[in-house]
Amino acid sequence: MDKVTRKTTRRIMLGDIPIGGNAPISIQSMLSIKTSNIPEATTQIRELISAGCEIIRCAVMDISDANAIKELKKISKAPLVADIHFDYRLAIASIENGIDGLRINPGNIGKIEGVQKLVAAAKERNIPIRIGVNSGSLPKDLVQKYSVSAEAMVESALRHIKILEDLAFYDIKVSAKASSIPLMLESYRKLSKACDYPLHLGITEAGTTLSGSIKSAIALGILLEEGIGDTIRVSLTANPVQEVIVAKEILRNLGLRKGLNIISCPTCGRTRIDLIGLTEQVEKALKNYSDYPLTIAVMGCAVNGPGEAKEADFGIAGGIKEGLLFAKGEIVKKVPEELLVKELLALIQNHIGKQ
Amino acid sequence: MDKVTRKTTRRIMLGDIPIGGNAPISIQSMLSIKTSNIPEATTQIRELISAGCEIIRCAVMDISDANAIKELKKISKAPLVADIHFDYRLAIASIENGIDGLRINPGNIGKIEGVQKLVAAAKERNIPIRIGVNSGSLPKDLVQKYSVSAEAMVESALRHIKILEDLAFYDIKVSAKASSIPLMLESYRKLSKACDYPLHLGITEAGTTLSGSIKSAIALGILLEEGIGDTIRVSLTANPVQEVIVAKEILRNLGLRKGLNIISCPTCGRTRIDLIGLTEQVEKALKNYSDYPLTIAVMGCAVNGPGEAKEADFGIAGGIKEGLLFAKGEIVKKVPEELLVKELLALIQNHIGKQ
Repeated sequence: MDKVTRKTTRRIMLGDIPIGGNAPISIQSMLSIKTSNIPEATTQIRELISAGCEIIRCAVMDISDANAIKELKKISKAPLVADIHFDYRLAIASIENGIDGLRINPGNIGKIEGVQKLVAAAKERNIPIRIGVNSGSLPKDLVQKYSVSAEAMVESALRHIKILEDLAFYDIKVSAKASSIPLMLESYRKLSKACDYPLHLGITEAGTTLSGSIKSAIALGILLEEGIGDTIRVSLTANPVQEVIVAKEILRNLGLRKGLNIISCPTCGRTRIDLIGLTEQVEKALKNYSDYPLTIAVMGCAVNGPGEAKEADFGIAGGIKEGLLFAKGEIVKKVPEELLVKELLALIQNHIGKQ
Repeated sequence: MDKVTRKTTRRIMLGDIPIGGNAPISIQSMLSIKTSNIPEATTQIRELISAGCEIIRCAVMDISDANAIKELKKISKAPLVADIHFDYRLAIASIENGIDGLRINPGNIGKIEGVQKLVAAAKERNIPIRIGVNSGSLPKDLVQKYSVSAEAMVESALRHIKILEDLAFYDIKVSAKASSIPLMLESYRKLSKACDYPLHLGITEAGTTLSGSIKSAIALGILLEEGIGDTIRVSLTANPVQEVIVAKEILRNLGLRKGLNIISCPTCGRTRIDLIGLTEQVEKALKNYSDYPLTIAVMGCAVNGPGEAKEADFGIAGGIKEGLLFAKGEIVKKVPEELLVKELLALIQNHIGKQ
């Protein structure tokens, strides 16, 4: 099978997480809690990390948020990134409080003295900066010149990059988000040709869990399969833990990350069991096994099921009142319907135990 | 913006739906009811059509299913396709009962006399045949030669195609489904180079609603954006109506179909309202407007919201206790929070009424 050939980018370090230069693609999310609300932010950081989030961004809107970073760094095993608009002093305060990365656009800060101070502070502590271009907030002159287009997105990014490069700062990561998939794809493709900084992929204003996941899966899926992208964020109007779950599924499905893969056939006129209920039961029973590189099949039809799911490590196929337990296409045994999930789980646990 | 350049394929007609030759990409689903259960099958056909399903497949496992087609054709405004394994007599019975298309693999029928009879009957009524190759049921000799691979998938498809072409039958559509995305992508890419028959895209055993949608969005999204694919089915272990909703979202997001696009920002530390609840309210309120080509934004932040969602036709941005109603980036008016959705809906209805 064709393996994805990744575009080689410069490597930066965000805390202990490498980004770019063929490092594994890392998963990011963002706190939906005000950063200065330390108790709730702590809970959400723990939930995100336990779901598999590797980099956590938080909005720094005022000095209380910047100061909270000191406490949050004590409990977070994942690097933290401060998201700052315009005010370089908040960036410096975040750096002093131990932040691992910044998301700030140097072209929007105003006076160059502010940019110089910020860059000096970031350089001293090896803190990378993400330049985040967004189709909704492009500079007016570029919109007039190019309209809201990939050309405007890329030129805006290159302007911000130049400001940092002129200060001999190269620990840069870039994003070019839009809510339109064609615009987002073209922007990242052009950006990937125009520079070799690592790229942070994302779709903005994606939507609620299902439609936002579909949108991110298409856009991130297309770029990742082309070899573009070094770290990803799935943006959803939902609990950020859900963003991490969806991001993991996207990477796993493209073979970019190992983990549990549950496959199940669509219900059809041949199905004689409650396949939807059964699959949901299996998903629930295997919730804590998401990092094991196993393929588990839930098939509706005992005649074709085991054969059609030969690539599955383990699987069940429903019949009338009883079903089959199978492994790599071979039948292991017949089981009464109500014991199918239990027996499948036992088989998997036994397998994992033996490893 | 780059427009998708579609690969030109031969055009076939499935009832009154054109497939291939730059026809719009059509959406398919499959009955999860036994075809002979006419009352329930009728209900599901109506639900599928009302959700936007354009082609409906049904399993024909026995003669009672084949005979039911006569009744179902009376109520179905969408063409029906009979899904048949091995038994050419069921295919002929389906044709006699008025079916619009067949899904059957001629290489699996056995004696050539059966294939000849089937092809003669299909040709007489201009009924197209879909050849459906599946990674789980490849011929043993090809698996031995190539293992389960894109080469085996494509050679299997070409063998079936040759049987039909040798009988001067060319009303062919082909699918090459797998549950592994890399295998599926490579198979369709090779198939698209190897023949010019229209391609039916799908991932098999995709999974439940969310993870199955992610999988289909990645795989179908990648191929459609490359210009490959003429008709699609999203397979989910869920109510088939859900498959149609997801298929429509995939096409819409790639600019391949017009319709309602609801965008909403992720919640972040800057959000001061119940954005998730608000977005879900908007989605629900606009459920019946899915075919209108409008972009509606639901933004969490009154300061940046209207500007960041300039491309939205209409939108709301939440503040504390009150919010903004905006159109094309311009503020229309301030509204108390509890009236936001109602006022948005009134604005949209007024706009649609004026068209």
